[in-house]
Amino acid sequence: MSRDLQQLISEMTLEEKASLCSGLDFWNTKPIERLGIPSIMVTDGPHGLRKQKGSGDHLGLFDSVPATCFPSAAGLASSWNRDLIREVGIALGEECQAENVGVLLGPGVNIKRSPLCGRNFEYFSEDPYLSSEMAANHIIGVQSQGVGTSLKHFAANNQEHRRMSVDAIVDERTLREIYLASFEGAVKKGEPWTVMCSYNKVNGEFASQNEQLLTKILKEEWGHAGFVVSDWGAVVDRVPGLAAGLELEMPATGGVNDRKIVEAVQSGRLSIDVLDEAVRRLLTVIFQAADQHKEGSQYDQAAHHQLARRAAAESMVLLKNEEAVLPLPKQGSLAVIGEFCYRPRYQGGGSSHIVPTQLDNLYEEIVRSAGAAASVVYAQGYKLDSDESDDAMIAEAAAAAASADHAVLFIGLPDRYESEGYDRSHLQIPANQQQLVAEIAKVQLNLIVVLCNGAPIEMPWLPHAKAVLEGYLGGQALGGAFADLLFGDVNPSGKLAETFPKKLSHNPSHLNFPGHNDRVEYHEGGFVGYRYYDMKEIEPLFPFGYGLSYTQFEYSNLSVSRKSLKDTDTVEVRLTVHNVGTVAGKEIVQLYVHDKESTVVRPKQELKGFVKVDLAPGEGSTVQMTLDKRAFAYYNTTLGDWHVESGEFELRIGKSSQDIMLTETITVESTVPVSSPFTRHSTLGDLLKDPVGAQVVGQMMQQFQAQSTTASLAEEAPDMMMAMMQFMPIRAMVTFSQGAFTEQMLDGLLTQLNGAAVES
Amino acid sequence: MSRDLQQLISEMTLEEKASLCSGLDFWNTKPIERLGIPSIMVTDGPHGLRKQKGSGDHLGLFDSVPATCFPSAAGLASSWNRDLIREVGIALGEECQAENVGVLLGPGVNIKRSPLCGRNFEYFSEDPYLSSEMAANHIIGVQSQGVGTSLKHFAANNQEHRRMSVDAIVDERTLREIYLASFEGAVKKGEPWTVMCSYNKVNGEFASQNEQLLTKILKEEWGHAGFVVSDWGAVVDRVPGLAAGLELEMPATGGVNDRKIVEAVQSGRLSIDVLDEAVRRLLTVIFQAADQHKEGSQYDQAAHHQLARRAAAESMVLLKNEEAVLPLPKQGSLAVIGEFCYRPRYQGGGSSHIVPTQLDNLYEEIVRSAGAAASVVYAQGYKLDSDESDDAMIAEAAAAAASADHAVLFIGLPDRYESEGYDRSHLQIPANQQQLVAEIAKVQLNLIVVLCNGAPIEMPWLPHAKAVLEGYLGGQALGGAFADLLFGDVNPSGKLAETFPKKLSHNPSHLNFPGHNDRVEYHEGGFVGYRYYDMKEIEPLFPFGYGLSYTQFEYSNLSVSRKSLKDTDTVEVRLTVHNVGTVAGKEIVQLYVHDKESTVVRPKQELKGFVKVDLAPGEGSTVQMTLDKRAFAYYNTTLGDWHVESGEFELRIGKSSQDIMLTETITVESTVPVSSPFTRHSTLGDLLKDPVGAQVVGQMMQQFQAQSTTASLAEEAPDMMMAMMQFMPIRAMVTFSQGAFTEQMLDGLLTQLNGAAVES
Repeated sequence: MSRDLQQLISEMTLEEKASLCSGLDFWNTKPIERLGIPSIMVTDGPHGLRKQKGSGDHLGLFDSVPATCFPSAAGLASSWNRDLIREVGIALGEECQAENVGVLLGPGVNIKRSPLCGRNFEYFSEDPYLSSEMAANHIIGVQSQGVGTSLKHFAANNQEHRRMSVDAIVDERTLREIYLASFEGAVKKGEPWTVMCSYNKVNGEFASQNEQLLTKILKEEWGHAGFVVSDWGAVVDRVPGLAAGLELEMPATGGVNDRKIVEAVQSGRLSIDVLDEAVRRLLTVIFQAADQHKEGSQYDQAAHHQLARRAAAESMVLLKNEEAVLPLPKQGSLAVIGEFCYRPRYQGGGSSHIVPTQLDNLYEEIVRSAGAAASVVYAQGYKLDSDESDDAMIAEAAAAAASADHAVLFIGLPDRYESEGYDRSHLQIPANQQQLVAEIAKVQLNLIVVLCNGAPIEMPWLPHAKAVLEGYLGGQALGGAFADLLFGDVNPSGKLAETFPKKLSHNPSHLNFPGHNDRVEYHEGGFVGYRYYDMKEIEPLFPFGYGLSYTQFEYSNLSVSRKSLKDTDTVEVRLTVHNVGTVAGKEIVQLYVHDKESTVVRPKQELKGFVKVDLAPGEGSTVQMTLDKRAFAYYNTTLGDWHVESGEFELRIGKSSQDIMLTETITVESTVPVSSPFTRHSTLGDLLKDPVGAQVVGQMMQQFQAQSTTASLAEEAPDMMMAMMQFMPIRAMVTFSQGAFTEQMLDGLLTQLNGAAVES
Repeated sequence: MSRDLQQLISEMTLEEKASLCSGLDFWNTKPIERLGIPSIMVTDGPHGLRKQKGSGDHLGLFDSVPATCFPSAAGLASSWNRDLIREVGIALGEECQAENVGVLLGPGVNIKRSPLCGRNFEYFSEDPYLSSEMAANHIIGVQSQGVGTSLKHFAANNQEHRRMSVDAIVDERTLREIYLASFEGAVKKGEPWTVMCSYNKVNGEFASQNEQLLTKILKEEWGHAGFVVSDWGAVVDRVPGLAAGLELEMPATGGVNDRKIVEAVQSGRLSIDVLDEAVRRLLTVIFQAADQHKEGSQYDQAAHHQLARRAAAESMVLLKNEEAVLPLPKQGSLAVIGEFCYRPRYQGGGSSHIVPTQLDNLYEEIVRSAGAAASVVYAQGYKLDSDESDDAMIAEAAAAAASADHAVLFIGLPDRYESEGYDRSHLQIPANQQQLVAEIAKVQLNLIVVLCNGAPIEMPWLPHAKAVLEGYLGGQALGGAFADLLFGDVNPSGKLAETFPKKLSHNPSHLNFPGHNDRVEYHEGGFVGYRYYDMKEIEPLFPFGYGLSYTQFEYSNLSVSRKSLKDTDTVEVRLTVHNVGTVAGKEIVQLYVHDKESTVVRPKQELKGFVKVDLAPGEGSTVQMTLDKRAFAYYNTTLGDWHVESGEFELRIGKSSQDIMLTETITVESTVPVSSPFTRHSTLGDLLKDPVGAQVVGQMMQQFQAQSTTASLAEEAPDMMMAMMQFMPIRAMVTFSQGAFTEQMLDGLLTQLNGAAVES
């Protein structure tokens, strides 16, 4: 429906305009009935709908209407499957329509700076490209159903510790290349109706009133057309927040902040134009939602459960599979161990916690998949609500394992170990679970460990397990998905969207996480995740992009559409992938770009493309990825823009970040000149790079070397002589030339070099 | 001689005062004959005197008078022997007296931030305590002879790359705890007559005009009584430099900068008081030197050579000695391989490069020590001035090695690989030397590698060598020292004053060294050297404090004079060390302090004491070390002072930083209260730590939990509930209490908590 919003705004009173800038209650925007402006509901996601039952005037995490619980983002990202996450988004959109929800609060694209962050399960990746691709497709899916999304939490909200007061100190290049890039791709490709600002400060200013983030970058640079909503309670100072670009405050403030906006406009401290623009953005989204609402729509719960099962199976990552112990035979005896079987950890704690429409029983799903020819026994093994070992339980589990052909052990992080609201302090699983692994390993070599956890753990027990399947938080259909994978009904095809370190101390943010008092400094800069492990040559437990399959894939015939291009061109990258194993499977082909030479320190390689391909046994397929300027660029803070340095780039095709199969080198030429003026402090080496400068330096060098001692120096220590000259500022020549080169000559030289006078 | 300097200054003209603030030429201060003010010579050290021959109007590195070349600082520090370095200082002072030098330019105490720094050979350590102890004793030795020193290069000059223009960005705590601490101890204990400022900028301001460094910290806080001299050519802007505390500019500027000082005083831009104070400091040192000059003094070159030999032997570090292959027998056959035998690398390149009084021939020294019963052959093996392997040389060396009982292979870094003026770009030794090790290892299992290098190298060839002796740059008597150690005439007793990493990439400054353009950011903060490897759990090749002996030592009976103390007290730490082997030897006992709990991130342990003890076989001795406040403190930037957090500290007695033998825990209580006012942004958790705050929060909690949904939240997710409350700023209660807690109540609460109104 086309509407004249300007006309509508002109009919609103100042008070009505201000009133629209905060919620009616916890979950709804304010209606203005006189003008036909409806209220819409905005409510939690992102991997399932959390629509609160009842009056909706409080936080209420545990009393929402049933909804399909899909795998959380950490898992979904591991699928590297754009189509799948779009399907999940469509299903979420359908459920929102059925529940009359206008905006689903998610997805979350904060970068996994530290595995300790309690909310990592809700985020996609340590890599901004993968994260933004997943998010964009999630958004496109949801919004295709006429329901909005809220991309969150903008920005640099990478920890739960003191999240409402901490100041994240991040240099601009790091912000742009890592933390903002994850949002940027999602905003540009997904066009989310809304963006949610985070609680924390970014470089000294709260995100909720950070004009640089909310207006300059999000709206002006990236072209976001919708509104920004505060995380619940994130508003600190309402009027500066509105001026900075925060349109909607949530939840309601009982009118207090609406009055502040009115007073600010009346007193002239806030321009009415700013308020009008905020209202225009709010109305745009409110009507987008209201107009597209499908009254009385329903969704197919069973079909959504099946989608959840398919998504879960594709989200899980096979980390180890010695002697092809997996898939399990559908015969013989199997011991299934661990309280997770009956109290599965399928979602994370906090605002994303939902009431599922149904919930798989892991044990029953395994029994069903194992079939009649197999015998399956269960033992609890440990208590989830304790870290203490129970000798009787261990003995029972060991006995069950000893008498079976295989043992599948479900372990991981209990709810109390990770949640929104707080970060972990270590990467261990509970001691009783660790001890259980060791005890089972003594009696059963065919030990398969299945992990339920939202983020990486240390695995000192890894040598004990013949196979390890990372399940993440698999959603309500995780039981079926586990069964599908364990028995080979589905071939594992997930790969890690984050590095698993051997030790927490190896993580790049270690020593600077979670900061001191209310200040956390991102001293690792852009070297987050694999970008750090690569450069520091620290071997991870499992690298970014890693995951096993029950089949094998071969890569060949790498070709590029052009070997040489300008930074305004694109290049197509093609290769052939063959399934050379005996079962069907999906492969995630990854494309990393390596800048062979750079004047700035850059990661060894960065993910710039990926594709997931489904292949029958023996089948081959050609896949294609496209690279543009951004694939080769770094953020140049002097230019205030992305910049490609002319030169050679290696394209690396990998099965993971560390398993590079094919490479090709291309040349990219910059179309953007970069120059900086010479100053008194420019070195002779700097001058040598300039035609005029080189001539002048050449003369100086001759004079300098004509002195007997420097001549002997040049002869006896040529490298030192050259370096000393190279690094000598022009101004120092005034001293060292002993009068031959004067201040006046220096000024003249600078004028000549720069074409105009330059300040020192 | 007592003098009335104020009277003298009052008799000086403005021009005379200004003239004193720069050099007469390259190496001498200006005399003012009319007033009886002499000229003194200041000239390079620090491990040998470099007094230039001839007119002295230039840099002239290779035409100095002969002087004893002692081991460079990297080696001397590895002795951990305060008495030894004091002896070396005394010898240097004697040589200065004989050459009429007033101030010896050194020692250098810059911290080894990266092993790549080309000048690391001139510096002591990665640890500020060890560095300052070595420097202080060097200074005390030299100055005991009536000759001044110049502690350099002040400050944060930790690379050669663009050293004259680079800006070192270092946070204050890191500066204080690491980079300045190395100077601080040396200034306070050694009282150097002069300090030399560095070329670089520190946090945006050139060191040569950095008032914070030169006046506030050096003069006012540390009480330095002498003058600051510029590194040669380090002055950028003379008048601000003088005002900032730089008294002497070197070298001469042809009067240009003297005139600027005169004009500044005349125009009122510079107070005459500042100039008078500078002149007072200059005259103090000039007369100190002139008055103590011993005309016609001489020194015993042979005795100094013997001291150099003793110092070299104690500076070398035995890194590996499998199957006790060392010491070598004084019989049988020995192949000595490597061009270093005849072209020894015994000192570094640059301003410290001197002309030795004599130079050991390594081969002859080995033949002499081996004695008549042994046969020694030599092969060159490689060319020092090339990285290319020479097959004939390798074959010759392999043949020599194959037919001998043992092979000693001298390898390391050629002059062209490391020097003042430029940094290394990698930690490899030349490829031809590496290949030689591999080839010799094929034919001779008893392979002993002796290293000549100023800083750490990577050792991919380490498994090939049965023994490795790190010789550093051993000075003119290195040949004798090598022979003494290899044949056991002297027992190795050096330990590493720096970490040898397995790979360059493991170094803490990697990714941030040497910076971009003219900016280097010290993002690793205070985690330099072992402080980093400890915390990151990255295994080094050889840890800080590590070194082997031909005997074994046992530690026992650790005791402390008190188990509980205030931060104003000191504590004595005693233990017994026994030589339980069969030969005499010296042991370096190290004391590290570990803060068991801290609100700030601190290194796992820090060196706070060490003692070197000489023990006959079977002998035992009790050693003692004293700890004071600084041993337990970190630099608190809010207080602007060193601060001890009350609590338990573990004292760790180690043979190295990673080989801790004994521990004891003591309690230290702070006498300094630390408090910060509450603000709107203080969290409920912060308030809980305050008696009044805890009461208020208690009431709020009750109200909050009385709401039905939060009650269910508390029941179903107690950890999350607690964390959310803990991290909630008081201001957010205004939103979440839904009117029960108002802005006015918040203001009232803050007033009550702080005893006065506090700004938000």
